[in-house]
Amino acid sequence: MVSFVAPSGTGKTTLVESVIAALIARGLRVGAVKHDAHRIELDTEGKDSWRLRQAGAETLLVGANQLAWMSDEGTVPPLEPLVQLFFADADIVIVEGYRSAGLATIIVERPEMSDPTWHRPESDRVIATVHPGEVEATVAILVEHFALA
Amino acid sequence: MVSFVAPSGTGKTTLVESVIAALIARGLRVGAVKHDAHRIELDTEGKDSWRLRQAGAETLLVGANQLAWMSDEGTVPPLEPLVQLFFADADIVIVEGYRSAGLATIIVERPEMSDPTWHRPESDRVIATVHPGEVEATVAILVEHFALA
Repeated sequence: MVSFVAPSGTGKTTLVESVIAALIARGLRVGAVKHDAHRIELDTEGKDSWRLRQAGAETLLVGANQLAWMSDEGTVPPLEPLVQLFFADADIVIVEGYRSAGLATIIVERPEMSDPTWHRPESDRVIATVHPGEVEATVAILVEHFALA
Repeated sequence: MVSFVAPSGTGKTTLVESVIAALIARGLRVGAVKHDAHRIELDTEGKDSWRLRQAGAETLLVGANQLAWMSDEGTVPPLEPLVQLFFADADIVIVEGYRSAGLATIIVERPEMSDPTWHRPESDRVIATVHPGEVEATVAILVEHFALA
């Protein structure tokens, strides 16, 4: 697992998107995790699941290749068992957010857009600092660090 | 875990909804799982997650109390580890669908709406057959069968 962190507005997701596509083009299996501290709402698509949840149950909605878990008060399971369950076959899992998980980290930064209020990750787990345009360099860093074929 | 199965249009979800509310009113922790063989679409709510998925990654979107997993070709993990991960604290987990999982089963049926084309579950795992209006009877069956306090 590798975590990409960046000050807001840096263009992190655009870089991650390109890095994922480049890794997949190399034949690697890539998982992606995005953590959003804001409330996400998944209920509009499934009236029945909404009814189960309204009745008070934590609800898991399972489709052929999609899954949603909805709770009003429950907390999401920790990252590690989620990744083991959902990405057992992945060669690499790219994580956005989850800064508290202590993962190996790539900082995405534009030197020209320095943000003094941004809380930098602790340096001992930072693999590299890259510019959001550096797709190939980032891929090379990941391939080397994680010994990807 | 208990699976509720019914011919289409029986009113199963209405019964399940009432049973969940009644179990919760007894102080029990209830999980619900709904399996939908049709494709469910979870992407509209998260543009970033859509982008990660479009780049080719299986994507897990995690919020404070919601979670979505999206794949184009992957298959959803089996029921047992999902339930262990998401419903570790539940006193009972009520499942709609997942007939192939071989769970203890309650058939919901209206005698007046018999459907000869409906494929009945194997009788050795059927706990009871109930009418969709029988909320209290169904709760009593569950409390006894699963020794719920």
